Amino acid sequence: MKELVFVGLGLNDEKGITAKGLDETRTADAVFMENYTSCMPDFSLERFEALCGKRVQLITRRDLEEEGGIVILQAAKVGKTVFLVPGDPFIATTHVALRIDAEKQGIKTRVVHGISIMSAIVSLSGLHNYKFGKTVTVPFPDNFSETPYNVIGQNKKLGLHTLCLLDLKVTENQYLSINQAIKLLQKVEENKKMGIITPDTVAVGIARAGANNPILKADYIKSLVNFDFGEPPFSLIIPGDLHFMEVDTLIAFAGAPEDFRRLVK
Amino acid sequence: MKELVFVGLGLNDEKGITAKGLDETRTADAVFMENYTSCMPDFSLERFEALCGKRVQLITRRDLEEEGGIVILQAAKVGKTVFLVPGDPFIATTHVALRIDAEKQGIKTRVVHGISIMSAIVSLSGLHNYKFGKTVTVPFPDNFSETPYNVIGQNKKLGLHTLCLLDLKVTENQYLSINQAIKLLQKVEENKKMGIITPDTVAVGIARAGANNPILKADYIKSLVNFDFGEPPFSLIIPGDLHFMEVDTLIAFAGAPEDFRRLVK
Repeated sequence: MKELVFVGLGLNDEKGITAKGLDETRTADAVFMENYTSCMPDFSLERFEALCGKRVQLITRRDLEEEGGIVILQAAKVGKTVFLVPGDPFIATTHVALRIDAEKQGIKTRVVHGISIMSAIVSLSGLHNYKFGKTVTVPFPDNFSETPYNVIGQNKKLGLHTLCLLDLKVTENQYLSINQAIKLLQKVEENKKMGIITPDTVAVGIARAGANNPILKADYIKSLVNFDFGEPPFSLIIPGDLHFMEVDTLIAFAGAPEDFRRLVK
Repeated sequence: MKELVFVGLGLNDEKGITAKGLDETRTADAVFMENYTSCMPDFSLERFEALCGKRVQLITRRDLEEEGGIVILQAAKVGKTVFLVPGDPFIATTHVALRIDAEKQGIKTRVVHGISIMSAIVSLSGLHNYKFGKTVTVPFPDNFSETPYNVIGQNKKLGLHTLCLLDLKVTENQYLSINQAIKLLQKVEENKKMGIITPDTVAVGIARAGANNPILKADYIKSLVNFDFGEPPFSLIIPGDLHFMEVDTLIAFAGAPEDFRRLVK
């Protein structure tokens, strides 16, 4: 069968893939993988190849962005081809262009979903899914932007939580830390003085969602800024209004101080 | 090892679980599962038991809500216990109370994530993840509410997309259809006349996300209301402002009419 199947690897390690994704990989004629859009800290290519019984060819950003993924498209013209992507294949839009190109060239495509950091973080936090507003990425300091601060402010005004993804350059092993992200938000606060990020603002930091040892810590900004979250990847949630069940969960599973109870609206 | 591991089953069928989740199930002393919070249309308990090599005990809503999940807690006090949940175990907050009770009784708990409908739908739609606002559930007509209409309006004002989950009663095999959901929104429009849901409003209907044959259709409300989406489960997205890449993807993979191009902002 000539086709291109986009398969999500899920989170953290080689066993984050679904049973379905593994089946697709085992029955493929050619298997490609990219590992530059997200960080899977405990992933071993050797163990993954043993698990799926196939050789996996690593694809670089250059292969996709400059060469248009031609090596993948050529393989998909002669046999079943699997392209493995960390997380879910299309939660980020990086690979949409490749899928459109494939279809234009008459190659059938399918999607096998993977676990996305987006849902894992919401799940770990215990915060109510339908109370999240717009998501935002906090960039590295050399790309400084007021947007994350403004999005948090807009969400808070509506009582909504903000999921902040923290910027990363996987191939250069650079990860914006939770502490750095907080400091950037504080810097915008210093300029704009809108009271959106104060020392008593509540935040939830999450490291290594999807790993066996994720770190989850809810606290006031003034304390959280000094908390050691260990190794990446990192995310940050700035909650809006809190329901008492959300506070219960933050106290039970994110080490929130007992006095969070006074925050319940 | 005495512990309670919450494992996500992911979407659609018995192979939506991760390799990690399957390992946890294979090494458990007791395995429980609930199948009333979400619909997994192609799931076979028999095939799943063959896959994991364990007997799986089905848990009802009554077991959890009236009995407090005591049968699960008792098993977790004597051995490794896995509780299987459709999708991700904690994207809905249904099972948070059980986890809190377990920890209070000195039972260690862990989470193995599963693919959530939340991320699969965003991924399938090709719409940009960071442009989604608050999510909302459209209830059955006997629970009529203006909330979904208001949330869509609030998101649109900010240029944001709205993911509408459609209500379901799995045990009674009742699913709000995409067509019914649109009609409910139209009914609110008739009363409120705010121009949020007009015949030319754009919408994306999705049936069976996570299955091998998901149906994805983007069109104007006036056409979509008559589209046959087949079997459940269903979801609906009402987009806000559209980027040209989003329109490209809707045309390529959701059968959107070519004149969607005029909508690009």
